[in-house]
Amino acid sequence: MIEPLSDLSRLCIHTMTTKPWALPEAIDGYTAAGVPGITVWRQALEPQGVAESARMLAGSGLRVVSLCRGGFFPAATDAGRQEALDDNRRAIDEAAAIGAPLVVLVCGAVPGMPLAEARKQIADGIAAVVAHAEGAGVRLSIEALHPMYADVRSAVNTLGQANDMVEALATPWVGVTVDVYHLWWDPGLEQQIARAGDSILSFHVCDWRTPTRDLLNDRGLMGDGCIDIPVIRGWVEQTGFCGPVEVEIFSDEYWATDQAAFVERIKAAYLAYC
Amino acid sequence: MIEPLSDLSRLCIHTMTTKPWALPEAIDGYTAAGVPGITVWRQALEPQGVAESARMLAGSGLRVVSLCRGGFFPAATDAGRQEALDDNRRAIDEAAAIGAPLVVLVCGAVPGMPLAEARKQIADGIAAVVAHAEGAGVRLSIEALHPMYADVRSAVNTLGQANDMVEALATPWVGVTVDVYHLWWDPGLEQQIARAGDSILSFHVCDWRTPTRDLLNDRGLMGDGCIDIPVIRGWVEQTGFCGPVEVEIFSDEYWATDQAAFVERIKAAYLAYC
Repeated sequence: MIEPLSDLSRLCIHTMTTKPWALPEAIDGYTAAGVPGITVWRQALEPQGVAESARMLAGSGLRVVSLCRGGFFPAATDAGRQEALDDNRRAIDEAAAIGAPLVVLVCGAVPGMPLAEARKQIADGIAAVVAHAEGAGVRLSIEALHPMYADVRSAVNTLGQANDMVEALATPWVGVTVDVYHLWWDPGLEQQIARAGDSILSFHVCDWRTPTRDLLNDRGLMGDGCIDIPVIRGWVEQTGFCGPVEVEIFSDEYWATDQAAFVERIKAAYLAYC
Repeated sequence: MIEPLSDLSRLCIHTMTTKPWALPEAIDGYTAAGVPGITVWRQALEPQGVAESARMLAGSGLRVVSLCRGGFFPAATDAGRQEALDDNRRAIDEAAAIGAPLVVLVCGAVPGMPLAEARKQIADGIAAVVAHAEGAGVRLSIEALHPMYADVRSAVNTLGQANDMVEALATPWVGVTVDVYHLWWDPGLEQQIARAGDSILSFHVCDWRTPTRDLLNDRGLMGDGCIDIPVIRGWVEQTGFCGPVEVEIFSDEYWATDQAAFVERIKAAYLAYC
């Protein structure tokens, strides 16, 4: 049996989960609510810049869990691929600046590009920036995305593929993110989580709603849907993972509500359904 | 290289593709357009009943390719599972009555039921109706559905799973349907199609739109999206499959248009993009 989450000590919220809040509001809101961890999306850095964001985060007492997101490696041209590498190196530098030990990679896809080619460009792209990551002391984490995002967001659609890439790269600076929303349906999930072992660098939760009204922005709060999160968390923790449980919810419905009240709902759902 | 489809001889359209048409209109419309094959959805049988539908189809000269759909085996109660078996036996009888050699199975899922349990109930359900199918001379075809349907439509989400079930059942009366919409993203697709071999009983086409605006009813006409249909058809035909190419499109957008004109667009897209 998986041990229940009896307190909030491992809770982390993604700034995108509370998208209406700018970074200062998110920092204040999470801190006031007793949420100890934050994963920062790059959009949240822009208004005040990286240095000021870093100062605010350092002063907040929040644990910066990761930076979202790098990736998007495939492109139709050499120039496009080079631009992607440059942008990933910037993301790594930003992560280092704000004290995030990890950049999460949404690996990318180009409609019409054969998936096999996109997958090769992704592996090449990650390999090309590993040295920069190591130099900055920042790990890279491959997040397999749900197959419904294989057209434009990621050609890496199963944990098995992500594991294959990590094995081929064979460096401690690249691992995987397990996100229940993307992976819950996979008949090979338990086995692939065990295979990932200590390359699991982060763990994301939300829920799959029935019906799902929008492919992008209708994720559920834990308990809203059909994902058995404790079972998947159990598999992840059997590998030795004991890091943050990160709440990443894109939801037009929740974004339209009061965000402080939403954070309270997240806390309750975290204790009840994770 | 895959041989182009230079004529309409293998074209089949699903009645659901032209949903605004009742069965008599679909029969007339397909016949007038020179479409030789029809796959009948059970809803299309209801208004005039099975016997009258069978008479109309027999007199039409159309080739009845399959009946859609059986399946939906998992249920929370014994009574629910028994009802599903009874309904599948009725579907088999209906297929036999209209001259369809095949019932396509959308296997089912129940939100909140562990997928492993749903998958076991599916395998048990198919096993329970195989004898009835054999008695009626009708094959059953497991259609793996896209993982975005794992909550309520099918817990069988990869061709690999469908192949596992077919191997375990080990009867020529159960095979698989390859639908490009559900399977195009799968990194193991080529290998699993080869593994399926002569258990491939049918082949469905449409396209994946970017963006996909609705999980159910925003499928694209071939050429509207990013699926490389000729490549997948090539893999299927390397197994020896030379049967119908079935156009199955659920689209609020196309259903709102003139259906005779839509059939002409389907013919053109079939020749250009399949």
